[in-house]
Amino acid sequence: MRIVLDAMGSDSAPAPDVEGAVWAARDFGETIILVGDAERVRAELAKHKADGLPIEVVHAASVVTTHDKPSQVGKTKRDSSMAVGLDLVRDGKADAFVTAGNTGAVLALATLSTLRRISGVKRPCIASLIRLGDKTIILTDLGANADARPEWLVQFGAMASLYSQHVLGRERPTVALLSNGEEESKGNTLVKEATALFPVSGLNFIGNIEPKDMLRGAADVIVTDGFVGNIALKSMEALGDTLFGLIRANIAGGGLRVKLGALLVAPALRVVYRQVDVFEIGGAPLLGVNGVVIIGHGRTNAKGIRNAIGQARAAVQGDIIRVLREGMAKFEPEST
Amino acid sequence: MRIVLDAMGSDSAPAPDVEGAVWAARDFGETIILVGDAERVRAELAKHKADGLPIEVVHAASVVTTHDKPSQVGKTKRDSSMAVGLDLVRDGKADAFVTAGNTGAVLALATLSTLRRISGVKRPCIASLIRLGDKTIILTDLGANADARPEWLVQFGAMASLYSQHVLGRERPTVALLSNGEEESKGNTLVKEATALFPVSGLNFIGNIEPKDMLRGAADVIVTDGFVGNIALKSMEALGDTLFGLIRANIAGGGLRVKLGALLVAPALRVVYRQVDVFEIGGAPLLGVNGVVIIGHGRTNAKGIRNAIGQARAAVQGDIIRVLREGMAKFEPEST
Repeated sequence: MRIVLDAMGSDSAPAPDVEGAVWAARDFGETIILVGDAERVRAELAKHKADGLPIEVVHAASVVTTHDKPSQVGKTKRDSSMAVGLDLVRDGKADAFVTAGNTGAVLALATLSTLRRISGVKRPCIASLIRLGDKTIILTDLGANADARPEWLVQFGAMASLYSQHVLGRERPTVALLSNGEEESKGNTLVKEATALFPVSGLNFIGNIEPKDMLRGAADVIVTDGFVGNIALKSMEALGDTLFGLIRANIAGGGLRVKLGALLVAPALRVVYRQVDVFEIGGAPLLGVNGVVIIGHGRTNAKGIRNAIGQARAAVQGDIIRVLREGMAKFEPEST
Repeated sequence: MRIVLDAMGSDSAPAPDVEGAVWAARDFGETIILVGDAERVRAELAKHKADGLPIEVVHAASVVTTHDKPSQVGKTKRDSSMAVGLDLVRDGKADAFVTAGNTGAVLALATLSTLRRISGVKRPCIASLIRLGDKTIILTDLGANADARPEWLVQFGAMASLYSQHVLGRERPTVALLSNGEEESKGNTLVKEATALFPVSGLNFIGNIEPKDMLRGAADVIVTDGFVGNIALKSMEALGDTLFGLIRANIAGGGLRVKLGALLVAPALRVVYRQVDVFEIGGAPLLGVNGVVIIGHGRTNAKGIRNAIGQARAAVQGDIIRVLREGMAKFEPEST
């Protein structure tokens, strides 16, 4: 398997990106193709014991930054590490693409300039993988579609269901809509309209759930529009960061007893921290384009990159693109 | 001051409601009027040392349940503790109303059947008070308007600003829109349209912020529609509950060292827990109706009720209804 990594993707690129790639090459034994400024990437590679590992470097002349407008990159940044990397997948020279770069830009480049949409898919969506104990659930859309239509939500649910089944190994995944209450009378107009469409979609729809039910694992796939999904996930991330920050501050500001206690309780707290550490998952699959694309957090570390590459590998092993092509071709007529 | 408490409001009513009222009467010295099934309320009161405290009981023949449809309660539940309690405020027999009951029902009863909207207010909103260290910020709307219009969001910002200034004591409160990124290109259509209106609103608008900035205290007032606000807040609550649940479970399942450590570190963890314990705040003000209304969490405990009554008292002390009447009368023409 050949996995492309945008070596210039993360906020601190290429350091964490290259380190994560070396880590992944060692752990997974798959070929990693680093795309970016070849000189800088090689200089970074030289810092690691990468000799003999299946790592290749492909040069790209420019970089997509967080300031680039997604609507422009298809014209202005065709020579960027992001576009060149996606081209490798489009041209069959690689099996998957991983980036921690500008989400809007990768969405635009993948959807409009390179891989393009899978036939029958109205809008691609970003699927956030959330680990709850030993199972992984999917929250989608994470931000590809700030405004959505009810029938798109049904497709997001369909694509995420296929991912849950074929990549995460859930049998007949349950699907729910994220809402501000379980009752059908709750929800905004979009949710209410989608609530009417899901029961006839053929999906294993179980109704509407609240965030607390989501974190209890009440459904395998939770569907919402990209604005709400983004806010929900970022709200949880923000609270997690805040809480662990407060715990650290209160321990640091505590007396000797508290500090000793913290030392003893640390192993238990670390287990909890790993549960909410977004870099344990590493990246979110972009579903609905003709190729495996995993989008990492801009402020990722090497572990996040390593794990995002792991997600890409799992998606390729699950043959997700074939599954989505077949599934969405069948799905389309039923949903409209 | 006379504060009405819906004694039948909470999920476990009337026990925590009455206990919280006794606590509040003792701590604040204000008169608490308990409205509900007089026999049950008096039986509950008898369990506490309430003799000599300024507590009155007013009978109400029925109760609004979580199953009652908000659109129906104005007709079917005019004799409920909720409606009777709101009537007391409308008729000038009390200064504020507190309930931990069905949010949709109190919204409908207050807006359509009893207090009614303040002149110039297009839609009342629910303002969630979030304590960050020693300052309190407001996130609104919390769920009164699952679908909103841009100009309503501006009014939510205006009402919450007045509350922040006159009840929470912030000078010239900063106002921000909740979005999925700070850039103006981010946001859904509603946010983008509101982003254009806020700068000409006369409010101290500082732009769009993400959840993490909200928890860092980047703004005093954060505005969003009721669906998104509800999901954001519930996402944070859910993650807080999950994290503390995981911490407890990992400590309980740990060895002796971990358990000893937990004992020593407990004071520091408790400080953190209080930061995210929704019952420390107690209730969310309903802004835009002709009377102080505080809505508590259905699964509240006595402390939550006591603190919700404290919020009601602070709102009355800040003369918030007069402030909102004057402020929104002036505000209306500018915003449209």
